[in-house]
Amino acid sequence: MNIPDKVVNRLTLYHFILEDMRDDEKYISSTRIASLLNIDDSQVRKDLKYLKNSGKCRVGYEVKQLKHRIEEQLGFKQTRDAFIVGAGNLGSALAKYDSFKDYGLNILAMFDKDSKKIGTIINGKEVFDLSRVGNLASRLNVDIAILTVPKEYAQGAANYLAGAGIKYIWNFTPCILDVPRDVKIWNENLIGSFLQFTNNEEEEEYKNDN
Amino acid sequence: MNIPDKVVNRLTLYHFILEDMRDDEKYISSTRIASLLNIDDSQVRKDLKYLKNSGKCRVGYEVKQLKHRIEEQLGFKQTRDAFIVGAGNLGSALAKYDSFKDYGLNILAMFDKDSKKIGTIINGKEVFDLSRVGNLASRLNVDIAILTVPKEYAQGAANYLAGAGIKYIWNFTPCILDVPRDVKIWNENLIGSFLQFTNNEEEEEYKNDN
Repeated sequence: MNIPDKVVNRLTLYHFILEDMRDDEKYISSTRIASLLNIDDSQVRKDLKYLKNSGKCRVGYEVKQLKHRIEEQLGFKQTRDAFIVGAGNLGSALAKYDSFKDYGLNILAMFDKDSKKIGTIINGKEVFDLSRVGNLASRLNVDIAILTVPKEYAQGAANYLAGAGIKYIWNFTPCILDVPRDVKIWNENLIGSFLQFTNNEEEEEYKNDN
Repeated sequence: MNIPDKVVNRLTLYHFILEDMRDDEKYISSTRIASLLNIDDSQVRKDLKYLKNSGKCRVGYEVKQLKHRIEEQLGFKQTRDAFIVGAGNLGSALAKYDSFKDYGLNILAMFDKDSKKIGTIINGKEVFDLSRVGNLASRLNVDIAILTVPKEYAQGAANYLAGAGIKYIWNFTPCILDVPRDVKIWNENLIGSFLQFTNNEEEEEYKNDN
């Protein structure tokens, strides 16, 4: 798939809008989508051209079809299994974030080093000892980990995950992880995100691309 | 400030690297930064040119100076006060995320509608009834809210915040909020972020810009 990151991001936002529409709203215009996101109409139309058949007709886009095409194109139906590593506040919050599942992200289990947390169940997900991650990853065929441990344990946990066969780390810690080249890191940089928001303040701009 | 969003994001990541360096490491090369983030050396050098005096010298960049310049440029020291609206899992996790404060984001209080939560203290932050947000916002001069309520309450809460004088909403809900033009929204689109990660899978690319 060759859709630029910013377009992937915006298509997801368009999907949120479509999800929220009432059943009797059959069509939506690019102008309406653009206005809700405070972006340019032409941007919306350009983005939707990435879809094979966006359901465009005289009165706008056919809501159901557009939703379906975005789902297809972004692979929402293609479920990806993942582990959460770090059963603290953020890890638990993400475990309880049920929207992930609607978009194809399925959390199978959680891991921690804290014996008080091991064995507990968070939103149906059991917390295991981190030492078991390699075993469970290979048994369950999981290669994605969402890393939410405290800062000071981030690199250690990353080393451990790399050794356990994890290939993708979605990194929520404010640390840059040094990992072997075959492990991919996606830095969820909340601080950078906030700084973009506040630095943009003067301009009349919303964040519609990440 | 006219630094592009992606550069703001990467400068934050560079700062994470500098933060983690040992005291006896006085210099860092752009090659080292680039290698940790798996991006191009030339990209790092280009980004650092946005700083007034990056501390570049023959052996690399002077760590302390570079850190200081990034802080100055991105306004880490310029504290921004904010409220968290929604004292659930994600709201509590963000309230406990102490790194925010290091980067200038100061959470003063939390708000919820749930009487069981009102009056509790989360990491030193009191949870108030949402009906008090307008009063407290004007008394404490706060115009930023971090929105972490469940999806179904998101639009209602946003209406309420707009009416209470909040001007900036950092939106963690998977909803597109319809607000007056003078309220700015920054969508923290975790699902879009995950989809970018997994859609990029085939390519040998890390996420270094958001």
